[in-house]
Amino acid sequence: MESYMIWMPIVLAVLGLIYMFIKQKWVMKQDAGDGKMKEISYHIYEGALAFLNAEYKLLTVFVIIVSLALTAVSFIVPTTHWLIVIAFIFGAIFSAFAGNIGMKIATKTNVRTTQAARTSLPNALKISFGGGTVMGLGVAGLAVLGLTAFFIFFFWFFMGSEWTSTMDMTIVLETLAGFSLGAESIALFARVGGGIYTKAADVGADLVGKVEAGIPEDDPRNPATIADNVGDNVGDVAGMGADLFGSYVATVLAAMVLGNYVIKDMGGAIDDAFGGIGPILLPMAIAGAGIIISIIGTMLVKIKNNDAKEAQVMGALNFGNWTSIVLVLAACFALCKWMLPETMKMEFFGEGLVEISSMRVFYATLVGLIVGAVISSVTEYYTGLGKKPILKIVQQSSTGAGTNIIAGLATGMISTFPSVLLFAGAIWASYVFAGFYGVALAASAMMATTAMQLAIDAFGPISDNAGGIAEMSEQEPIVRERTDILDSVGNTTAATGKGFAIASAALTSLALFAAYVTFTGIDGINIFKAPVLAMLFVGGMVPVVFSALAMNAVGKAAMEMVQEVRRQFRDIPGIMEGTGKPEYDKCVAISTQASLKQMLLPGVLTIGFPLIIAFVPMLFGMEPTAIAEMLGGYMAGVTVSGVLWAIFQNNAGGAWDNAKKSFEAGVEINGEMTYKGSDAHKAAVTGDTVGDPFKDTSGPSMNILIKLTCLIGLVVAPILGGHEAETVTASNEIRKEVKVEMNAENQDFAQATVTISKTDENGVVTESVQEFKGTAAEVKASLEGLEEDVNVKIEKLDITKEKK
Amino acid sequence: MESYMIWMPIVLAVLGLIYMFIKQKWVMKQDAGDGKMKEISYHIYEGALAFLNAEYKLLTVFVIIVSLALTAVSFIVPTTHWLIVIAFIFGAIFSAFAGNIGMKIATKTNVRTTQAARTSLPNALKISFGGGTVMGLGVAGLAVLGLTAFFIFFFWFFMGSEWTSTMDMTIVLETLAGFSLGAESIALFARVGGGIYTKAADVGADLVGKVEAGIPEDDPRNPATIADNVGDNVGDVAGMGADLFGSYVATVLAAMVLGNYVIKDMGGAIDDAFGGIGPILLPMAIAGAGIIISIIGTMLVKIKNNDAKEAQVMGALNFGNWTSIVLVLAACFALCKWMLPETMKMEFFGEGLVEISSMRVFYATLVGLIVGAVISSVTEYYTGLGKKPILKIVQQSSTGAGTNIIAGLATGMISTFPSVLLFAGAIWASYVFAGFYGVALAASAMMATTAMQLAIDAFGPISDNAGGIAEMSEQEPIVRERTDILDSVGNTTAATGKGFAIASAALTSLALFAAYVTFTGIDGINIFKAPVLAMLFVGGMVPVVFSALAMNAVGKAAMEMVQEVRRQFRDIPGIMEGTGKPEYDKCVAISTQASLKQMLLPGVLTIGFPLIIAFVPMLFGMEPTAIAEMLGGYMAGVTVSGVLWAIFQNNAGGAWDNAKKSFEAGVEINGEMTYKGSDAHKAAVTGDTVGDPFKDTSGPSMNILIKLTCLIGLVVAPILGGHEAETVTASNEIRKEVKVEMNAENQDFAQATVTISKTDENGVVTESVQEFKGTAAEVKASLEGLEEDVNVKIEKLDITKEKK
Repeated sequence: MESYMIWMPIVLAVLGLIYMFIKQKWVMKQDAGDGKMKEISYHIYEGALAFLNAEYKLLTVFVIIVSLALTAVSFIVPTTHWLIVIAFIFGAIFSAFAGNIGMKIATKTNVRTTQAARTSLPNALKISFGGGTVMGLGVAGLAVLGLTAFFIFFFWFFMGSEWTSTMDMTIVLETLAGFSLGAESIALFARVGGGIYTKAADVGADLVGKVEAGIPEDDPRNPATIADNVGDNVGDVAGMGADLFGSYVATVLAAMVLGNYVIKDMGGAIDDAFGGIGPILLPMAIAGAGIIISIIGTMLVKIKNNDAKEAQVMGALNFGNWTSIVLVLAACFALCKWMLPETMKMEFFGEGLVEISSMRVFYATLVGLIVGAVISSVTEYYTGLGKKPILKIVQQSSTGAGTNIIAGLATGMISTFPSVLLFAGAIWASYVFAGFYGVALAASAMMATTAMQLAIDAFGPISDNAGGIAEMSEQEPIVRERTDILDSVGNTTAATGKGFAIASAALTSLALFAAYVTFTGIDGINIFKAPVLAMLFVGGMVPVVFSALAMNAVGKAAMEMVQEVRRQFRDIPGIMEGTGKPEYDKCVAISTQASLKQMLLPGVLTIGFPLIIAFVPMLFGMEPTAIAEMLGGYMAGVTVSGVLWAIFQNNAGGAWDNAKKSFEAGVEINGEMTYKGSDAHKAAVTGDTVGDPFKDTSGPSMNILIKLTCLIGLVVAPILGGHEAETVTASNEIRKEVKVEMNAENQDFAQATVTISKTDENGVVTESVQEFKGTAAEVKASLEGLEEDVNVKIEKLDITKEKK
Repeated sequence: MESYMIWMPIVLAVLGLIYMFIKQKWVMKQDAGDGKMKEISYHIYEGALAFLNAEYKLLTVFVIIVSLALTAVSFIVPTTHWLIVIAFIFGAIFSAFAGNIGMKIATKTNVRTTQAARTSLPNALKISFGGGTVMGLGVAGLAVLGLTAFFIFFFWFFMGSEWTSTMDMTIVLETLAGFSLGAESIALFARVGGGIYTKAADVGADLVGKVEAGIPEDDPRNPATIADNVGDNVGDVAGMGADLFGSYVATVLAAMVLGNYVIKDMGGAIDDAFGGIGPILLPMAIAGAGIIISIIGTMLVKIKNNDAKEAQVMGALNFGNWTSIVLVLAACFALCKWMLPETMKMEFFGEGLVEISSMRVFYATLVGLIVGAVISSVTEYYTGLGKKPILKIVQQSSTGAGTNIIAGLATGMISTFPSVLLFAGAIWASYVFAGFYGVALAASAMMATTAMQLAIDAFGPISDNAGGIAEMSEQEPIVRERTDILDSVGNTTAATGKGFAIASAALTSLALFAAYVTFTGIDGINIFKAPVLAMLFVGGMVPVVFSALAMNAVGKAAMEMVQEVRRQFRDIPGIMEGTGKPEYDKCVAISTQASLKQMLLPGVLTIGFPLIIAFVPMLFGMEPTAIAEMLGGYMAGVTVSGVLWAIFQNNAGGAWDNAKKSFEAGVEINGEMTYKGSDAHKAAVTGDTVGDPFKDTSGPSMNILIKLTCLIGLVVAPILGGHEAETVTASNEIRKEVKVEMNAENQDFAQATVTISKTDENGVVTESVQEFKGTAAEVKASLEGLEEDVNVKIEKLDITKEKK
């Protein structure tokens, strides 16, 4: 009995958090530079806190409303327990806390990176990546800790820490889904709100500062410059962190749900060394192992040469990243081999129960790791400096902004080709290997290195900020050069990180989608039914409209910022001469308020649509299973369309950005070297303006949209389904199927359906179906009588009790 | 016996063609103006013919290849007859011929419109709309004539003009699908190739002529100006015509297929006054009636006042259009009442057979007409001059091209919201009224006014051309003013026409999709199966990549045009002074070659993907029904995503166009009147450059993509399914279902499955299933024996013979 394994992920998560704590202390001990640097850094820190505080207030209101709604649901639906509310609140708190850790360390690390860059590039990398590591481990550690702790608690509370039945475990996992919903709700605020914030501040600062007043970027005379730097932290650090926190939790949860159904397919119980829940524990174990592996990976990221360039820095990151991916692969192999039964039975459509080996589950995880690696390469190809698509956009810039825009749009659109084929291939392959459990584990394996991914992601905006502080505090040019090397690498990792985030969101959503179908107990989602098809259309439309709303939100928020900056330039005497002090906090306040206000409409769209689809038809007396199928169609529409629009927008935006950057070093157009300030460069700047909300606001928001949609579906599922059926198959010389159903609302009622097929000597097949209804005891007796009657042994019959 | 009704649509189609012929003579009799006008007009006519001839050559190769492939298929698959090849070839010829008629009349009408505009606006409208009417009636008349004639022929050939069984009728309709496939293939060439042609010529002419050389639009010194005017005819006249020809045929075909299944659901045969095929004839009858109604509608389009403005012209068009819609509604009511049995049985998912009245079919047609009308209003709202979205784009132009682009993109994206809700509502409502037969008839009713719609559409580019001729032949300003009024109205009808085209494509695809599922005999398309879900993703991706390819194609073709125009300006002496003559034909040749070359890749993508999905898994031994479901998932993905991208691109493009046009009359931005030549106007021009390929190339191509995809699916369907099952239901005090299957490959083999349910006094339900296999005679005997056995009468049992 190695059921202590249930505690393993918690232990690893705590280890990760301890390491995070040590690293945090180390970063904080570093020199924070002179007075001016400290002051600027303090402004950014203050601005970030101001956003967090405003966000928390709004969140508190939101959490209270949703909690009340969930409480009501838990009292109406017997399979939903009120503890889901507690899980929801803690999911929100954990995610918010992880964001808080990340934002604080990022705003403390930036100035220390600047200071380190005054003496050495390796040190600057060490510190900025150290800050990223704190962020990554904070997110991953808290995610695993929270999820595992609640699982252990619910497993004890509902099942007495002993396996009883799939149905009881379903209640455990349904309640646990609250934690995931809480986490993803925070992600909605952090990712969408943060995305609007960062672009509103950026556009506002650029439009008045750079264009109208003609002062350089990050100039301290620009009132919006602090807001702009805060935005990097709010959007790229906290937003990305919340996004991956949500994906991480949802992926592991979905894999657990599907693991539970593996046990069901195997006859309702398995006998393994892990208390009979090996397939459920496996995804948590992989997540736990991933934390330790990520720590090892982060330790490998270092450079020695003070004259290193982008390639060496990128090489160091890649080395750490690839090492951790290989280690995860090894861990998956060992864990699959150890924790799963050697062979398992899984229900495959059209094929019935299929026996598969634990190695096939490992192959599924391999598929996930490959997807994670390949999607990064695909993203880099379409958005990387010097690559063919970027060169083409650069060429097209020579004939004006119009052709630049067309080329950028086309690049983003074409990039969906390899990406979607990759996803489709991954769905298919991991499903062929190990059913939807395989799909969920592919996602889990990919997400195992989340801490490492986040460290790589977060170091970019930290370096960006460090460069800004260097500029504002008027350091030697060498300092900015060093931070620019880090920033440039950070831009590449930001693009590939977005690829990783959408891949994880796509696989997570699929896993949630599969969990949804099994939760509701419907046979599948048939799009040949007109209402389901109609909802597929509606689902497909939502990401498009969401994107438009997000883009418009940036426009509106940016306009408010523009007005305020113009006002300050006009009203504050001596501001342009550097004698008057700009009111940074007013700009920060405007970004904060506007971003949170503007995210409400897309947020309502995200949450409202699935709820309307679930509940309005109910008022008209529609069958719950028919509604479940419609909602499933909606979820599929959102996922397919959302993934497409995410790839399209992220890659188009990334491509425009780097096409513009290409002009900094100079590009050859029609045989002539062309630089910044040329007409072609101006056209490229226009492209970048369009690309900014694409890649930083609407594109990344798609991740949240599709995950949150599928999670809401999962939480609503018990209301739409709820009738649990246990199918027991016995084999003999004649085929027989026994299906036992427990009515959820009436404990004393059970129902069994037995199908017996006989083939006589003339080749005529006779199939007879008998149904038995009554109390569980009565049905059991009838079935036993039947056993004698038709001379067939029912190998396993488990009529489970219903939980209150 | 009113089975002469089968001839009615042909008679009406011929009447339409006769009227077309008279109208054509009348137009040709009009004064074609002086020598210079005639010369320019002749150049455009020549250019259009050059394109048609080049297209026909390519088409011939294409038709031969596809014919060979279809022949091979027809010999391998027993349910596919080689006559499908003949139908395919004629479908292609009819569509090409219709395009030819339209293109010729358009290029003859333009100069006559210019000439008429010298004296009177009412006359100019009369002539240009007369040309449009010829085009509209040519398309609609040939479509109905071809489809009906082939149906009558196949009905005679396969069934001896007498109803035998659903299975035989399926063979008739499967063969008829060849006609539709032929028509849609031409549409691919005409719409995509034409779209590339028109924009390549337009961009090439503008970029060198207007921007580089600084000469006005339509200046005869510009070598690309003829190509530009040819482009209007190639893209907007022939392309739109082929698109609607394809939709028209496909819609009626799909409705006939589903009508056949209505008869099946009613027990395999009905007894009506139309030879037992009323539900199959109905869609053809509606189409036939639509032709006559359209003639009436076109007659109503006239104005009297020579000083009329846009509003009066628009009013005249609207009066004609609305009258024809109301008349179609009346015709649908009468025809549904007359041709359908008073009540019918239809299979609804989850509800089994439902009895519905013929009035419910009428309600479904009402839904279709409403969709057609509302979608036009929605399109007009998002793209119309003076409407809120356009004013917003105008405002955003003041801060540069970047914000103008973002606003345009957002407008296109937001416009998917009402459009998709409308489609989803229409699918649902028409399905609730009369199942998928209702969905198909909704589309049929909407398409009934195709001739009228095309007349309204085609008159726009004719007027546009007339304006160009006025400019090139240096007419008095009043002439151009008059043609500009017509052109301006034409721009609005072009946008609403695109809305109509995408609505028709969407409904047609859904009807084809439903026909596909019934053809293959699968239960439905379950996206919970991983391979189906994977294909849903792949299908969703294809329209995005197709759009990108189309946009890139425009870029490449335009670049070739730019080089050629530059070369002529450089090499031809005296060209700018008007003494040297530009080589118009070289530019026409470049547009022609480039557009046909560039459309190959998107064409291959469209045709290749469904074939790969259908045949590659077959090589790996996958079950045909599993493949059928995968292909269905792909079709659904293409349709959902294609509709979204069509709406997005059409409306964004239309909005940018009119935002730019708003500056011509002057707009108020931040309290100041702003005109052409301002910075804001320049930003709006950039938006229009992006919008051009959106609204004229990639956007409208989506229609073809989704229809052709679904048609290929329909033609491939018999290979994937092919086993026809007839279900006969008898009722008695105990439920009994008899299912009789004929094996398609073995005439002497039949199989019946009988399910009998009994409920005893203890409430225990026993269901027994018995299967009988053997020759048709043997099975019949067994069933008769059974009848006595269980004391149930089999009400109707029709074991049909298999056709060779």
